[in-house]
Amino acid sequence: MTPVVRVDLDRLHANISAMAAGPIPLRPHVKTHKIPEIARLQLAAGATGLTVATLGEAEIFAEVCDDLFIAYPVWADRRLPDLARRVRLTVGCDSLTAGRALARIDAPLSVLIEIDSGHHRSGVPVDAVADLARGLLSLGLDLRGAFTFPGHSYAPGQMAAAAADESAALVAAGEVLRSFGVTDPVLSGGSTPSARLSDPAVVTEVRPGVYVFNDAQQLELGTCGWEDIALSIRTRVVSRRDDLHQLIVDAGSKILGSDRPAWATGFGRVMAVPEARITAVSEHHGTIVWPEGEALPSIGVELDVVPNHVCPVLNLVDEVEVSDGSRWAVAARGMN
Amino acid sequence: MTPVVRVDLDRLHANISAMAAGPIPLRPHVKTHKIPEIARLQLAAGATGLTVATLGEAEIFAEVCDDLFIAYPVWADRRLPDLARRVRLTVGCDSLTAGRALARIDAPLSVLIEIDSGHHRSGVPVDAVADLARGLLSLGLDLRGAFTFPGHSYAPGQMAAAAADESAALVAAGEVLRSFGVTDPVLSGGSTPSARLSDPAVVTEVRPGVYVFNDAQQLELGTCGWEDIALSIRTRVVSRRDDLHQLIVDAGSKILGSDRPAWATGFGRVMAVPEARITAVSEHHGTIVWPEGEALPSIGVELDVVPNHVCPVLNLVDEVEVSDGSRWAVAARGMN
Repeated sequence: MTPVVRVDLDRLHANISAMAAGPIPLRPHVKTHKIPEIARLQLAAGATGLTVATLGEAEIFAEVCDDLFIAYPVWADRRLPDLARRVRLTVGCDSLTAGRALARIDAPLSVLIEIDSGHHRSGVPVDAVADLARGLLSLGLDLRGAFTFPGHSYAPGQMAAAAADESAALVAAGEVLRSFGVTDPVLSGGSTPSARLSDPAVVTEVRPGVYVFNDAQQLELGTCGWEDIALSIRTRVVSRRDDLHQLIVDAGSKILGSDRPAWATGFGRVMAVPEARITAVSEHHGTIVWPEGEALPSIGVELDVVPNHVCPVLNLVDEVEVSDGSRWAVAARGMN
Repeated sequence: MTPVVRVDLDRLHANISAMAAGPIPLRPHVKTHKIPEIARLQLAAGATGLTVATLGEAEIFAEVCDDLFIAYPVWADRRLPDLARRVRLTVGCDSLTAGRALARIDAPLSVLIEIDSGHHRSGVPVDAVADLARGLLSLGLDLRGAFTFPGHSYAPGQMAAAAADESAALVAAGEVLRSFGVTDPVLSGGSTPSARLSDPAVVTEVRPGVYVFNDAQQLELGTCGWEDIALSIRTRVVSRRDDLHQLIVDAGSKILGSDRPAWATGFGRVMAVPEARITAVSEHHGTIVWPEGEALPSIGVELDVVPNHVCPVLNLVDEVEVSDGSRWAVAARGMN
């Protein structure tokens, strides 16, 4: 049956080892894969703990790791105390309002302040760290440091600038936190495009996620090569139009996702056919414009395609096929 | 817990009744909702059968309906014969290659030729219908008619033109099919934006899907009003930036999807706050720019947001909350 998500185990191992060999302690973001088996490989390669995005993900990964960071401005939920008693739990916070709700939790919990280093999503500006730190400490919270997601690294040529922004923000936050008596603050950064550029003199841990698989975005940003792509989608040609030099495959947005940054050349790429482009997706149709002068594959033929952004793909399937013949359940799929 | 998908039952009933009251027999596309309970409501309101996109969906909906059309250029799968023996099954076909594979199926199966009426996805051009019809009939297939998806109706001001293209394509296909001895051919059309404009003198059935819930796309196309929106996502404000007049909510692309046509004003809308815009989504973050001059809601407050495109949303959750207090399982989620 197609479409199906497939993982190349050799490439997965190589990607995990390469990132683990970096100079900065690694706390990989497992929202990318959502698969406990892969988290175990990351921990065996030296990861100091895991990063998750939601409480639901944390509950799944508590089975394989006892040191979890929810890198998100968490709103205290009734399930949070149970989890905090099971594992060493750290959560993100960027407001006194959320801090007050966290302070009512009757369980051990550490907090990192989220800083906006230029991505302008969640997080406080650097000049607001002092007020927030003072407030969180006065609530009796265990404030341990700060984190940032330099998401503006996701643009061609912006990786180094985003890593520099990350450093500057974490340096400033670290000074503020030390002035409040937070010793050896955690200063956590990193995304897959920027993690190799993070400053080891500043950043105490990095949280990349996508690197385990890579994807068409990383390929087009230049942070990986074709040989580093460890996940692809096997799809079937179901229709073709010779007059438009176009194929329709059965991998649409329902398995590829529909993420497409303005700088991307399409909605994904085709393995072994670098000039092909996925120019449109609807739920069950992917439109591929085939390279000029190359013969169109026949209807019924299978192709391997690479999604733009791999994280949503794992949220769209219940399991993946592994190249050693096994299947892994995507245990944390849908854990919002 | 947020985020969660919620269905307004009164509005759902009203939407189902309104479409069923149209002049053309209705075979609704259930890929939108993926929920057997809703299919039962559609059938009770007079639907003549159901449309699905995949074999997996057909297997689920065979439990509630014995007349299914897979509106897709189906590649014969080993599971197809079993299904064809359980229900009256019709499948789409747009090539002789796929037709040959279908002809090897040892089970009753009807076929509709897919025509490209201007959307340029799957389907043959009108001038290729004769050759394909001749070929499929010579294979011994039970050719019953033709269908088209006028997807180019999904653009402001294009609905009437797309409905006219649909009519022209189906008129032409009908003439060809009758000339080959296909009596009273099925001529199937319709999308939610165009279904009310389909020509009852030509089109023998329509296959809209989104109309049961509607969404921000339909709102911005003008095919529904706010009072017709039957599905929304309850989300929580988790972060706010007064300096940017911006909120972050916990509904990101992992529940809203990331579909955004060029003409849409954002990634979704906010119920009761028409001037607000969801300007960005990442997996767990929705960025909402709040109307100028209106006070930002506090962190912790819940908001109801409307996705751009409702079909992918149902593919992202295992169940929905219904306004009568019940919960419905999304039984066909992930059925690729």
